[in-house]
Amino acid sequence: MSKRYTVAIVGATGAVGRKIAEKLAERDFPVKSIKLLASAKSAGTELSYNGHPVTVEEARPEAFEGVQFAFFSAGGAVSKVLAKEAAARGAIVIDNTSAFRMDPNTPLVVPEVNPQALAQHSGIIANPNCSTIQMVCALEPLRKKAGVKKVIVSTYQAVSGAGSAAIDELEKESRGLREVTPNPSVLPVKSLEKHYPIAGNLLPQIDVFEDNGFTFEELKMMNETKKIMELPDLEIAATCVRVPVVTGHSESVYVETEKELSLDEIRQVLAEAEGVVLQDDPANQLYPMPLYAEDQDPVYVGRIRKDPHTPTGIHLWIVADNLLKGAALNSIQIAEKMIELGLVKEVQE
Amino acid sequence: MSKRYTVAIVGATGAVGRKIAEKLAERDFPVKSIKLLASAKSAGTELSYNGHPVTVEEARPEAFEGVQFAFFSAGGAVSKVLAKEAAARGAIVIDNTSAFRMDPNTPLVVPEVNPQALAQHSGIIANPNCSTIQMVCALEPLRKKAGVKKVIVSTYQAVSGAGSAAIDELEKESRGLREVTPNPSVLPVKSLEKHYPIAGNLLPQIDVFEDNGFTFEELKMMNETKKIMELPDLEIAATCVRVPVVTGHSESVYVETEKELSLDEIRQVLAEAEGVVLQDDPANQLYPMPLYAEDQDPVYVGRIRKDPHTPTGIHLWIVADNLLKGAALNSIQIAEKMIELGLVKEVQE
Repeated sequence: MSKRYTVAIVGATGAVGRKIAEKLAERDFPVKSIKLLASAKSAGTELSYNGHPVTVEEARPEAFEGVQFAFFSAGGAVSKVLAKEAAARGAIVIDNTSAFRMDPNTPLVVPEVNPQALAQHSGIIANPNCSTIQMVCALEPLRKKAGVKKVIVSTYQAVSGAGSAAIDELEKESRGLREVTPNPSVLPVKSLEKHYPIAGNLLPQIDVFEDNGFTFEELKMMNETKKIMELPDLEIAATCVRVPVVTGHSESVYVETEKELSLDEIRQVLAEAEGVVLQDDPANQLYPMPLYAEDQDPVYVGRIRKDPHTPTGIHLWIVADNLLKGAALNSIQIAEKMIELGLVKEVQE
Repeated sequence: MSKRYTVAIVGATGAVGRKIAEKLAERDFPVKSIKLLASAKSAGTELSYNGHPVTVEEARPEAFEGVQFAFFSAGGAVSKVLAKEAAARGAIVIDNTSAFRMDPNTPLVVPEVNPQALAQHSGIIANPNCSTIQMVCALEPLRKKAGVKKVIVSTYQAVSGAGSAAIDELEKESRGLREVTPNPSVLPVKSLEKHYPIAGNLLPQIDVFEDNGFTFEELKMMNETKKIMELPDLEIAATCVRVPVVTGHSESVYVETEKELSLDEIRQVLAEAEGVVLQDDPANQLYPMPLYAEDQDPVYVGRIRKDPHTPTGIHLWIVADNLLKGAALNSIQIAEKMIELGLVKEVQE
């Protein structure tokens, strides 16, 4: 990686945008120059990259001239307008919104799972939903070893997945657990009519409801998993729940494989899986917990059990930082993988 | 119910003991006189019943002379020693610990589900685990209509299930979400070596681990459900997780019935089920949440969805107050049902 690249971050002032800048520097991503882009309102804000001050510019089509990697994390509406403008100017767009994820012409990629999909890109790569990414990191090694037939997942999702306003809301509600007189306005879905407290509570709604009773978040997990794993017939269903945790999504996952695996085989497969760290030692009370996954790169897997009735059934508890592997880190890993695979066009200097 | 009964509460100073006293008064249970019993350490404490002061006495065998209903909620060790002493003196023991639940000679009862089991008692009736009770209230009406074959449940359990010390721990940890320097000593399991913060965290361990990797809490849910529903071959598996909620257990449940039900049939069956309140109106963001289930009697069921792949598969979200229907209320309902069924021996006045 001796070449260096011109990088733009769209949504640079947001929670994920900031994590992308942090992680690019931390990972020594070969940045030649960086543009921090945001709405006109945020333009002029002074941020920093790798210790150097950078002034935020307005995200307009012309801002992408000369950009090679554009990380988008400013909401689906912005991506729908600007991603194609950036791609038309030669940038590889790595989009962290749901705008293009289910578009058949857009690769939806977790580098540990389906790097081969990157070759088919036409300028835009979609970064999957946070809950999906951490789950497929644990499912893919099982699929490779024994096939995967059925998945039932219940999530325990942190508020940072709903942005920094949701973190502020939880924090405000948490000052004095019993005396809370909350006036929620962000969760479960800011744009909808009703809002409920999250401190001391659980919200079994993430994103809007669809006609079949599933939420859009649940359908994202179901459909994105099928696409990433190239398993259109996977029998998958999700229940997504917001919990009073700041950062770190957790998932209780039941998987049925095609072939039966022993507990030792399951452990070995997961211990060797790229990006996965096994935390599974009940005797020493070692298991994944979101508080300890915050700011960490890996997907943690533990509480591994064979189902007592179905020989091919496996129970897993999967935890990861939703802002890192669930968003910023995976986006950067996509860019790194494209460089590694020689998929980035040369530009004239 | 013109007759009145002498009642004892063992563990009267504890969280569930106090709820039992409150609920007996609130429900106009036919109490002739009440004895509040606890450890020698708590003897002499002044409590109240229905507005009248009552002095706590030490729970000794002789204290049960003349008692007709003895509600035990002082831990398994106390029940193992004193429940038989109380029963030998003619009391009907309703035991809220795990001491006798799996004893084949002890009925394990949720009055809406298996009142018929009460007739076989020999002095002791076991009150099931809190997580089990609320789940079987929703499963039983489905079983009656269509049979139940398989259950995969992931729980979101409140800290009050671990006693008032756990509530205090969460409260202390919650003052200032980011600046917490917690020094946990209660959760996940007080008697074990390691303790982790619950504020802003999730603990995928409730009770101790067994050799098969399931926790005792998970096995309780699995075994108790089979016993209560009289379904020894039920394919059930549980994952139990503690969440930073004070009171109110929640459950994401996947059920496979024997016969296929339509969504309307499922809704109707649950809407008509005794003790169940349907809260399932996605368009109006109506679904069960623990914060709103606190201090309420019913088992709330919502987020009802047909599985997208398995025609007999159903997804449910079930919430109830773990101290009420999960403990105190169910215990009292057992006593009420025994009176109603004429199962309480006459005593000489």
